[in-house]
Amino acid sequence: MTPDEFRRYGHEAIDWIAAYLENPQRYPVLPRVKPGQLTDALPEAGPRQGEPMEKITADFERLVVPAMTHWNHPGFFAYFANSSTPEGILGEMFTAALNGNGMLWKTSPAVTELEQVVLRWLRQWSGLPENWFGLIYDTASVASMHAIAAAREACDPESRTRGNRPGLVVYTSEQAHSSIEKGAIAVGIGQDYVRKIAVDDEFRMRPDALREAIEKDILAGLRPCCVSATVGTTSTTSVDPVPAIADICEQYRLWLHVDTAYAGATAILPEYRWAFAGCERADSFVTNPHKWLLTPMDCSVFYTRRPDVLRRAFSLVPEYLQTAQDPRAVNLMDYGVPLGRRFRALKLWFILRSYGLEGLQEVLRAHIRMAQEFAAVVDGDPRFERTAPAPFSVVNFRYNGTDDENKRILEAVNATGEAFLSGTVLHGRFTMHLAVGNHATRPEHVRRAWQLVQAEAGAVAASA
Amino acid sequence: MTPDEFRRYGHEAIDWIAAYLENPQRYPVLPRVKPGQLTDALPEAGPRQGEPMEKITADFERLVVPAMTHWNHPGFFAYFANSSTPEGILGEMFTAALNGNGMLWKTSPAVTELEQVVLRWLRQWSGLPENWFGLIYDTASVASMHAIAAAREACDPESRTRGNRPGLVVYTSEQAHSSIEKGAIAVGIGQDYVRKIAVDDEFRMRPDALREAIEKDILAGLRPCCVSATVGTTSTTSVDPVPAIADICEQYRLWLHVDTAYAGATAILPEYRWAFAGCERADSFVTNPHKWLLTPMDCSVFYTRRPDVLRRAFSLVPEYLQTAQDPRAVNLMDYGVPLGRRFRALKLWFILRSYGLEGLQEVLRAHIRMAQEFAAVVDGDPRFERTAPAPFSVVNFRYNGTDDENKRILEAVNATGEAFLSGTVLHGRFTMHLAVGNHATRPEHVRRAWQLVQAEAGAVAASA
Repeated sequence: MTPDEFRRYGHEAIDWIAAYLENPQRYPVLPRVKPGQLTDALPEAGPRQGEPMEKITADFERLVVPAMTHWNHPGFFAYFANSSTPEGILGEMFTAALNGNGMLWKTSPAVTELEQVVLRWLRQWSGLPENWFGLIYDTASVASMHAIAAAREACDPESRTRGNRPGLVVYTSEQAHSSIEKGAIAVGIGQDYVRKIAVDDEFRMRPDALREAIEKDILAGLRPCCVSATVGTTSTTSVDPVPAIADICEQYRLWLHVDTAYAGATAILPEYRWAFAGCERADSFVTNPHKWLLTPMDCSVFYTRRPDVLRRAFSLVPEYLQTAQDPRAVNLMDYGVPLGRRFRALKLWFILRSYGLEGLQEVLRAHIRMAQEFAAVVDGDPRFERTAPAPFSVVNFRYNGTDDENKRILEAVNATGEAFLSGTVLHGRFTMHLAVGNHATRPEHVRRAWQLVQAEAGAVAASA
Repeated sequence: MTPDEFRRYGHEAIDWIAAYLENPQRYPVLPRVKPGQLTDALPEAGPRQGEPMEKITADFERLVVPAMTHWNHPGFFAYFANSSTPEGILGEMFTAALNGNGMLWKTSPAVTELEQVVLRWLRQWSGLPENWFGLIYDTASVASMHAIAAAREACDPESRTRGNRPGLVVYTSEQAHSSIEKGAIAVGIGQDYVRKIAVDDEFRMRPDALREAIEKDILAGLRPCCVSATVGTTSTTSVDPVPAIADICEQYRLWLHVDTAYAGATAILPEYRWAFAGCERADSFVTNPHKWLLTPMDCSVFYTRRPDVLRRAFSLVPEYLQTAQDPRAVNLMDYGVPLGRRFRALKLWFILRSYGLEGLQEVLRAHIRMAQEFAAVVDGDPRFERTAPAPFSVVNFRYNGTDDENKRILEAVNATGEAFLSGTVLHGRFTMHLAVGNHATRPEHVRRAWQLVQAEAGAVAASA
């Protein structure tokens, strides 16, 4: 394709995207496709000769788009809702065009330095310590795996050369994200050495239970190594008591990782600083702008106050990547497994500048208000109960019936194409989970979701 | 930003990108910036209030672009040259706009299914076995780490629960990419248990030395686990003798991983099938379309004939991600560490369709011809020698002088801004490395690089 043809198809793509952003509701939020349907609609083999772009974009629109789950739909309330903003899309366009690779400073100074700059801005807005070092990974799962590997390095510096020795232990709560356990499996610590500490009745890690588990492991000759606390757990957005956990980590000299992939965005709100108390004592900290800071997938921000440990765990410079040493020329490949590095900071820079601190605060506060309004109407309806506190923009609730009835309500709501909620299990009972986090979501979309839930509950009650 | 504003800035961005693609030589390939220069030019803190897009894009053009290393410059010959094609940029635009996340089939059927479809097409074009399962990771480093973790699972199924036990051994060659060693460190096998097998004088792993190392480790009570062979090594693009290595892997029941991050593209050329002999017996195989298949960063394709093992190593499904079971609804999160998954297949689908098999073959053949022409002129100049065979599109060569003189030549060439070559060390001597792989590179660009090298060598000779 020539640059002139790119100009033509690019302008068409912009118009298509603008129309999509203008009306993301033209598609149902959950697609009406069966497993295998898209696969079966596409050719078994790729084309021998090149095809015209018109044909490709027509298939994109006819086959691919209707098989998408529309995360940009304002009725997307599942998991942690998020969205792609125009600013983020522009950033991704330039990233794709420049195609810089920031493995070394030299292979793209701008990729390396802009990453440091935007992460400093975000750190300042979030009230986090000045001396923290930041870098971007693709996902929080990968970031947390690096945190666990750094903890291992700090606790057993010989592990890099001699391998992981059995008996290092990682602690997290029953409500932590599965990525902590997966990270421990990946780095060779093993599932048996992940302690899922009990939570209190508001789903927060119990420091007394953490201390007890550590003491028990020490008595058994094991080596406690890392605690992963969560600010904003996946199911209920509960906030672990980080100050008490940090005390324990200091006493036993354990690496403290804080997973705040979703809720970390709210560190920029003064009224949410309580949730981050103690985080300044963390060794590492992960938050995902691709969740609630309006950034397209993928962009997971990782901070550590011990970059030397992370670097010791991962630095490995072959001859073909040797460059001149300069203290201001950071080589980000030294801090993790991936060598190649997309220019992910660009989209985040566009968003931080275009919204500004106050603009982002406004978006988050609006989402929180909508979720709190939803929580209040659930509380006001005796047919429903809330199943967890809602400190951020996520509300867990259930219909006062069987698990099966709740699942039927959820499925019926999701089948409308107007809203998509997810489910989880709390205290052994199935519960519905509504998350507000999409920049297109307005109060009427949340109210509509509630109408749908009420209507389907009514249908379930009538058929009972 | 409203959709209408996006329309406006989007059209401007398209025009900017088209002009950039029309003339990537308007910027020097290596930027003329000092470490810290971009950082110092940007504000210490992010803006409180949002800023107009005009100001942001003006700063992008004034500060960021001149601090980029221009991988799109036709004179980019370092490492493995690559490029971002218009088709790939269009794909990334739609990916950013839709912002689908393919962690589960349900969270975006199209993300999951299109990934399977394009990887099937590519597998067929590459003559790889029909029953291989494919998925996309961000980088080959991450893909190879997963291969090593799968090898560990196959060799010691209890490692998932009980952790990595010391003594598993990974084998690769002295010329292998550093990611193999890094992967072994990451998963807890440890650097001491990575054997870098000697190579022959054409930089290919010696099967006799591999067998000897395995026997020695078995005698020492260790557990050989994985061999990573390379088709197209990083420094010289040498091809390990995969058939002989596969024999050894079968005999000792070791996982065979093939790293062909760069050269894997040539599997679509019948005249290069020799390089992939034996690969059909591999357990896993990684190739990077973001290297030589014209795809923007990042897109690393991973195939395995034992997806069950990879899945056993990594599957972990919490309550909040439970979905209905359907054999055709693959949940790609089960096959690795990252949970979130960008719609990376879309850009690859655009490229495979727009070029077609024959179009891609033509691009690769043109690159190979240019590199071979360069090799021939080096061979014809008695002041220079080639330091390795050049089976693909990479030529290693040196000036018949000291290492220091070669480094001075390389630095002087790179300082012109017209070409960027990298260096490596072969048989203990510094050598220059020229890689052709950018879709804008034409024979005149390669000839110009040779002129520059000759001129700088002349200057070095004159000053000696």
